Amino acid sequence: MSDLVDDLLAGKHSALARVITKIENRSPGYREIVSDLHEHTGSADVIGVTGSPGAGKSTLVDKVAATYRDRGLTVGVIAIDPSSPFSGGAVLGDRIRMASNAGDMDVFFRSMSARGSLGGLSTATTDAVTALDAFGKDKIIVETVGAGQNEVDIVRTADTVAVLVPPGSGDDVQMLKAGILEIGDVFVVNKADLDGADRTVQQLREMLQGRDGRPETGHHGATELGGDATALEANGDDEPETWDPPIVETVANRSEGVGAFIDALANHGDYLDRTGRRVRQTRERYASEIRTLLREDANELLADELARRGGIERYVDDVVERHTDPYTVVDEVLEPLRECVAERRDG
Amino acid sequence: MSDLVDDLLAGKHSALARVITKIENRSPGYREIVSDLHEHTGSADVIGVTGSPGAGKSTLVDKVAATYRDRGLTVGVIAIDPSSPFSGGAVLGDRIRMASNAGDMDVFFRSMSARGSLGGLSTATTDAVTALDAFGKDKIIVETVGAGQNEVDIVRTADTVAVLVPPGSGDDVQMLKAGILEIGDVFVVNKADLDGADRTVQQLREMLQGRDGRPETGHHGATELGGDATALEANGDDEPETWDPPIVETVANRSEGVGAFIDALANHGDYLDRTGRRVRQTRERYASEIRTLLREDANELLADELARRGGIERYVDDVVERHTDPYTVVDEVLEPLRECVAERRDG
Repeated sequence: MSDLVDDLLAGKHSALARVITKIENRSPGYREIVSDLHEHTGSADVIGVTGSPGAGKSTLVDKVAATYRDRGLTVGVIAIDPSSPFSGGAVLGDRIRMASNAGDMDVFFRSMSARGSLGGLSTATTDAVTALDAFGKDKIIVETVGAGQNEVDIVRTADTVAVLVPPGSGDDVQMLKAGILEIGDVFVVNKADLDGADRTVQQLREMLQGRDGRPETGHHGATELGGDATALEANGDDEPETWDPPIVETVANRSEGVGAFIDALANHGDYLDRTGRRVRQTRERYASEIRTLLREDANELLADELARRGGIERYVDDVVERHTDPYTVVDEVLEPLRECVAERRDG
Repeated sequence: MSDLVDDLLAGKHSALARVITKIENRSPGYREIVSDLHEHTGSADVIGVTGSPGAGKSTLVDKVAATYRDRGLTVGVIAIDPSSPFSGGAVLGDRIRMASNAGDMDVFFRSMSARGSLGGLSTATTDAVTALDAFGKDKIIVETVGAGQNEVDIVRTADTVAVLVPPGSGDDVQMLKAGILEIGDVFVVNKADLDGADRTVQQLREMLQGRDGRPETGHHGATELGGDATALEANGDDEPETWDPPIVETVANRSEGVGAFIDALANHGDYLDRTGRRVRQTRERYASEIRTLLREDANELLADELARRGGIERYVDDVVERHTDPYTVVDEVLEPLRECVAERRDG
């Protein structure tokens, strides 16, 4: 085991920062480090926070982190950079931030760039969560912009997913339909003091009642600012207990509703434990991680194979000239691999 | 070559519909069909239309299709279903629609479901475009919802990409930032008769001037309703000609601005031809298609390999028990393949 891993496990934040940099850059040795750290994981709560730009994610995350600290818990925050897949690179740049109330660095803040590859993003995020978990952080918050696939990927990493919705026109809520409604365990209407917030809560509630794969019967009111966030309703004995996502109203920049939001997160955590869903979720996550890593490594193998055959351009020439077509090219490149695998099986 | 391919090439719409169904379902034989069709492609203009739900895509696409028909051109439309990746399946269902003015089926309309896999979606869409192109459609329109990765994938299929923006708050335009600004060749502010349309056009124009990878110098005003959509400005002799995406205002349900939009599409097509960019774009598209197909086939190979080893669950057990970790599992599964490939190379 490397000194870096030892230092991280010994609680050195500088080692944690260096490990995450290695993970982000896919620097030599990052795989071994993440492998070594795995056995020290399993005790952190991982919370995903997503929503459209301007919904107030950073402010809410900062307040939540500070509140956890006040309660004596350690916190790590990973913010995924909203860089476009086309421009690449980080917008925010690397930065490590100490929460204003935590000179002891127990709120460890780190932004990571989205880079080009979606697979790469989710793998690097998962690895960074592994590092924070092994380090011993009690709460890990992963913050992403609401820009498509990221919200869906975050599910792979987080135990509990909070979706922030800005108050406003029905269009904003309508936008959420494509994929994001299904992944939220807790919904937050932030800036709840603005006009239109009540209407947004109402629309959200209606849409959540129509969510796919959930019983239409159970529902509950939006949690009032600072009010009781208990959202669980045990169903009949014959049915498995389901989770009805609560809608919490917050005004993060005035710290209003932050306690209720944290209660809602805790309730969801209790639900995961009580129903055995946490165990199933963890298993699904590992399976998905293994599949993703397999895909990424196989892609590398294929890139090597293409390069060995003189690169992709000569195939493109033939396709453009209509001497061949993409499917035929792919069969030609993969045939040796298929034979290889078949021989191993038979031999 | 199958009868189905012969019938498609002979201009039978029923064969075209059956081929696209096979493509959508990945039914046995679809690869051979797409392979056979490839040599008959290359003459269609492929136009992508994307934008957020409610932007008025279907109405505009219908009007554009009808206008092309009036000019004696044949048209195929593929609409990607906005089904969530979590709920799966088609919302609109399969449907074939005859445009109201085209009893001769020369506007061939087909919706395809997004299914689970993003790779699968883009591959099936590309294959469906191949079928429409081989059939002999002059114009092929691919319509997707503005829900993340789809807009980016559409670039792989379309020669010209139109992005629809609904008039409204600055937030809507702000939303576009993540990825979609970069892919638009023509921007359309539809429902331009609504309040806020002018402001949306103004905001769009400002954002387009700041687009990554484009010179900051060239710009031009928004095309007025029904006005001249010419957007080309030849740069100095020393620089390669660049494309400044025009912003067209339309009121699709009143057919206003549709002519200007079609002119803008044609101008972009001329630009592609004049600069040699069409050829480069086509090559990039084939390269990307080959890579995607390689990935998909390799994933299948890996799934088989995992199954042969008794499935993923036993690995998940070991990872949960901390006897191993995901990276170590992946190395174990891929090692034989790596060895195989290395032996072939040396042998």
